[in-house]
Amino acid sequence: MPRRGTFGLESLFYARSIALIGASNNPRKASNQVISTLLEKGYSGKVYPVNPNEEKVLGLRCYPAVEEIADPIDLVVISLPAEAVIPAIEGIARRGDVYGVVVLSAGFAETAIPERVALETKIIEISRLAGMRVVGPNCVGLLCTDNRLTTGFIPGLKMEKGSLGFITQSGAFGGAFLMLASDQPKPLGFNKFGHVGNMADVSNLDLLKYFGSDPEINAISMYMESAPDGRKLMTMLEDISRRKPVFVLKVGRTPIGSRATLSHTGALAGSDQVYSAAFKQAGAVRVETLEELLDASKATTMMPRPGGRHIAVLTEAGGPGIIAMDEIGRDKSLQMAHLAPETRRKLEHCLPPMAMICKPEGYVDMTASAMEKEHAEALDAILADPGVDSAVLISLPPTFLPAIDVAKAITEVIHHHQKPVAVCFMRGEAMMDARCYLEGNGIATFESPQRAARALINLTAAAGFINRSAQSLDVYRQKGPVQKRLNSAAPITEPEAVQLLAEYEIPYPAHRFTTNLREAEEAASEIGYPVVIKAVSQDIVHKSDLGGVVTAIKSGQMLRKAYRQMKAAIKEKAPDASLQGILVCKQAEDGLEVIVGVKRDPAFGPVVLFGLGGIFTEVLQDTALRIVPFSKDEALKMINETRASLLLKGSRGFPAVDVELLARLLESVSQLAIEHTEIAELDLNPVRLYQDDLIVLDVRAILA
Amino acid sequence: MPRRGTFGLESLFYARSIALIGASNNPRKASNQVISTLLEKGYSGKVYPVNPNEEKVLGLRCYPAVEEIADPIDLVVISLPAEAVIPAIEGIARRGDVYGVVVLSAGFAETAIPERVALETKIIEISRLAGMRVVGPNCVGLLCTDNRLTTGFIPGLKMEKGSLGFITQSGAFGGAFLMLASDQPKPLGFNKFGHVGNMADVSNLDLLKYFGSDPEINAISMYMESAPDGRKLMTMLEDISRRKPVFVLKVGRTPIGSRATLSHTGALAGSDQVYSAAFKQAGAVRVETLEELLDASKATTMMPRPGGRHIAVLTEAGGPGIIAMDEIGRDKSLQMAHLAPETRRKLEHCLPPMAMICKPEGYVDMTASAMEKEHAEALDAILADPGVDSAVLISLPPTFLPAIDVAKAITEVIHHHQKPVAVCFMRGEAMMDARCYLEGNGIATFESPQRAARALINLTAAAGFINRSAQSLDVYRQKGPVQKRLNSAAPITEPEAVQLLAEYEIPYPAHRFTTNLREAEEAASEIGYPVVIKAVSQDIVHKSDLGGVVTAIKSGQMLRKAYRQMKAAIKEKAPDASLQGILVCKQAEDGLEVIVGVKRDPAFGPVVLFGLGGIFTEVLQDTALRIVPFSKDEALKMINETRASLLLKGSRGFPAVDVELLARLLESVSQLAIEHTEIAELDLNPVRLYQDDLIVLDVRAILA
Repeated sequence: MPRRGTFGLESLFYARSIALIGASNNPRKASNQVISTLLEKGYSGKVYPVNPNEEKVLGLRCYPAVEEIADPIDLVVISLPAEAVIPAIEGIARRGDVYGVVVLSAGFAETAIPERVALETKIIEISRLAGMRVVGPNCVGLLCTDNRLTTGFIPGLKMEKGSLGFITQSGAFGGAFLMLASDQPKPLGFNKFGHVGNMADVSNLDLLKYFGSDPEINAISMYMESAPDGRKLMTMLEDISRRKPVFVLKVGRTPIGSRATLSHTGALAGSDQVYSAAFKQAGAVRVETLEELLDASKATTMMPRPGGRHIAVLTEAGGPGIIAMDEIGRDKSLQMAHLAPETRRKLEHCLPPMAMICKPEGYVDMTASAMEKEHAEALDAILADPGVDSAVLISLPPTFLPAIDVAKAITEVIHHHQKPVAVCFMRGEAMMDARCYLEGNGIATFESPQRAARALINLTAAAGFINRSAQSLDVYRQKGPVQKRLNSAAPITEPEAVQLLAEYEIPYPAHRFTTNLREAEEAASEIGYPVVIKAVSQDIVHKSDLGGVVTAIKSGQMLRKAYRQMKAAIKEKAPDASLQGILVCKQAEDGLEVIVGVKRDPAFGPVVLFGLGGIFTEVLQDTALRIVPFSKDEALKMINETRASLLLKGSRGFPAVDVELLARLLESVSQLAIEHTEIAELDLNPVRLYQDDLIVLDVRAILA
Repeated sequence: MPRRGTFGLESLFYARSIALIGASNNPRKASNQVISTLLEKGYSGKVYPVNPNEEKVLGLRCYPAVEEIADPIDLVVISLPAEAVIPAIEGIARRGDVYGVVVLSAGFAETAIPERVALETKIIEISRLAGMRVVGPNCVGLLCTDNRLTTGFIPGLKMEKGSLGFITQSGAFGGAFLMLASDQPKPLGFNKFGHVGNMADVSNLDLLKYFGSDPEINAISMYMESAPDGRKLMTMLEDISRRKPVFVLKVGRTPIGSRATLSHTGALAGSDQVYSAAFKQAGAVRVETLEELLDASKATTMMPRPGGRHIAVLTEAGGPGIIAMDEIGRDKSLQMAHLAPETRRKLEHCLPPMAMICKPEGYVDMTASAMEKEHAEALDAILADPGVDSAVLISLPPTFLPAIDVAKAITEVIHHHQKPVAVCFMRGEAMMDARCYLEGNGIATFESPQRAARALINLTAAAGFINRSAQSLDVYRQKGPVQKRLNSAAPITEPEAVQLLAEYEIPYPAHRFTTNLREAEEAASEIGYPVVIKAVSQDIVHKSDLGGVVTAIKSGQMLRKAYRQMKAAIKEKAPDASLQGILVCKQAEDGLEVIVGVKRDPAFGPVVLFGLGGIFTEVLQDTALRIVPFSKDEALKMINETRASLLLKGSRGFPAVDVELLARLLESVSQLAIEHTEIAELDLNPVRLYQDDLIVLDVRAILA
């Protein structure tokens, strides 16, 4: 019996027996490599080759068909040409005891050829009826170091046990990751690995959910091209990232990368900017390169978690120390620690006189005259400082100072303090002994100062997500009541949109909808001049381009003139538009203008966009996004992400505005978007901001 | 005799004999390591240990003093406590035959202690009198693979011969670079290496100049913290980068990195943004990490130069292929190649049916079913395409396809075509055979697809500098006539500054300087309304803040009112300011506003700044810089570097403006700044731009 039944996936990873259909004696066939790897790595279960043309494969008895194996079979791996897969699946289904199938073969939906897509659908139909899970097709499948199971053909595979769960949408990337992990001074271990291929059944999200609940796994790293369901991804991440760090290398960051992604798995990924927002909101740490993913995985499985974001840098090597500082200075995730006066005294005492202490703050350059004793004492002083949450230690011991001696001296100190220390002795044969000693003693080493600093930046970000305050889980699954207002795909008119805003207490100027000049004059007198008039028509989207907006109307005379001019302009420029009336609004005072919008992302659903209006949004694309719903705190982060947020703090000509109020507006719009799923697009543009108030001056909505 | 005499440095690198003062038998002393390395690496010259307390060091006869060595001595290495260095230098000077001294000892100017700084000055005084060059102090000195000379103590040093010249301001960084170079499948060779330490005499620029002229060196890589003379650096780079690629890792990119730099070598580096501009203008390629510097060095010494910037990506591995595409898409330096119809036909013919060809353009995913034959044929087809200047080849041969077979198959193809191909088989033991085979055959391999792509980006940038059109060399050395106009540090008045602009045909509105209301009225009538009036006072810098500017004056009546109000406002807000008069200017039409400025950088002298005015410059810091003088072409690049340059192409409310005219203005300002070295700061703010014109609306100048 499989140990636990979660999602059926556990039965696959902990399969007690594997049959391999298409087993071959030719070492240049994938199937042969799968069996030889299982044997070589010491898989704890039984292996059954299946091939009607072979008697034995790699010394094992070979069966003509899977149905003819009398023993129970938990998992079947298929390595056959695509056309032969359906009959094989039918045979497996007839057995009735198989938990799952890994289809290595390619040539299915990823080709985008209709009959090939149909083949894949058929595989899933048969498997579902038989109660079997399917991994792939077009994959290398699963690895588990507990029972030394593997279904794939990964070069240089080492079955090093560890606590990492690794999920990939690219077999080659997964292979590259494991090769790099094996190439560390002490091979970086993992617990489970899954390559999901075409995700016809088991998806990357299924593995994420399983790994999230698996007590053998303490950290999760993912290579991602797309998520089949963005909101499900967020719900899972929101939950898991409170317990386990999750690092994601999401590709398709650029337009050409995104088009290459489409050609790889055929999945349209949605906007990369929306993915970035999703990771930030839901607690996953996004990384950019293979090396960064490896280093983050290493840091999180080998180091204690930092209690905060104050870092110190201790270096024996000036240049490399500066490189670490430049990396820390690149973003705001870490802050240099302020060392206590006592710590400084200790450092002055133990370091050579030419050492540079706290220039700048939190940075200590011991210089090349530091021996093993100086390394150990200075590190001890720094880690003992309660203001230090983590440290980078950089050293390139010169030939006259054996690196291994330095390694031994600092090991004890690091173990004593239980704070994360990223050690960088650089890369090269000469440092290998020392790095092997350190990693053998559980201390992670990094190949360059920039990578050491980046690893701590990523570890600290993940730790921050774990420590974050509780919010409602499952928030992204929430759909809210659907309140369709109109059954038209046309834009709704501004007065209708304004009513929608009112439901959420979003302020809009005093206004009245009027259908003739007399009514407009009455409305203006009632509201009080100056006023703005706007054309109301379902046929007009950009009304100002057609002369459909006149501002700063200060008198009845000006109103009458503006009214007639507007009617004439629209008649001339949009002769087919039916004009329903004129909206008369109180003119708002001048102020800084921003834009707030709602869009729908194919993967994540409604997202709220914020930016400064005008050229900032149109030309500079200086906007921030969040997937709805989100809190006011998240809205504040969102605002601060834009470069233009600096203007909100006040600048020439404009006083500082009430950012809290703006964040509350964003939160309200988020709520509106989640509850009104019939809204495809919403533009509050502009929203005018004041020192203690704000107001929406124009709203445009389009229904889905 | 030294082989050549350039700058005296050649005599040091090619020293035929080395004396080491402070030679020790203790392997934990630097001096011992220097001698043992010289012996171990097979230095072709003679080695003379000097130490009054030893008879022999490492089996060599040891001399009590350097003067007592009867044989000629070319180079002396000093490894003594700082205090003992002066007497040693005096002894060396007395010999009369020594070309240079390498002072390994630290504890001089880098400590910023006055008596230590004085010691360093003294070393240089004595050496200059004796005609000796000094390397250091506080350095590991020189390495040369031609004669296997080394003066330092670099861990794991391999004396692999190559064509790279390496210059570093950090010994540890230099050591880390050489260790990493040795850790490649085939150790990356170098010809000469120099660590300059405190640069008391021999500077990084001296080495740059020498390496630039050294026929043994084909490419130069530098680790830089600062340049002693920015304009000299540019003059050298401008010359050398036309013949040899120059890659620079300049640290101090961030404020904290910059402060750490100051604490390392005590040198104030000047603005990092100005360094970036200098490298761009003078032809050096700036890189960001140790790994990137290594990869660029590898690419440039192992690959032919690309003829252009069109790249193709051929991959057997989907995920890693996308990562390469994302890296290429990050900036605009490379473009995806458009493959010819014939190339596509060839690819369709040789690749499996599930291969993705040119989705997107220039990208070919062979899929994991590609064997060695497919690799070779597809690569051959791509390299044969005249539209392809370079290629990335990515493969992670699965276990059933020996990687070495793929390596052999592609080697012949790459040799045949003589185009740069960056090969990525990932990193790990399993690929080592294949990578060693490739590198043994002169083909560079990279550890990740991102690094492979980045190496080609950097190589192509360097090749672009080599192929650039001839410009006057030595342009940055040019000082121009100094035409001091006023001997005051005070701001000069606007009418004076306007005259300066006129010298360079920089347009300013029709204007007249007036000293009373009657004159002002006359001037306005003559110029024609509307006009602007501005207060003229040497005591006022920001005149608009004091009510010293009134615009849109349409009549004599308005002028009289404005005139009186201005006088009153200034009297109230700046009672001590002496008002010299009022400038009456023609009011300019509305338009897009930019700012052009001149500042002085401590390292590079006058720099010209361009940005959009207002909040763009003040809040977003969206500006571009160039060191003067520069051409109109460089000015165009400068304009395009700003995010806001998109607005110049036309946007809501503003038509496209004449960018050529703007570039000419920048060129003129550059010329002004080089010829008027008395100008410390100049602000043309705003400059108003039109479809076929531009005009400076306000100018402010401060003298040095």
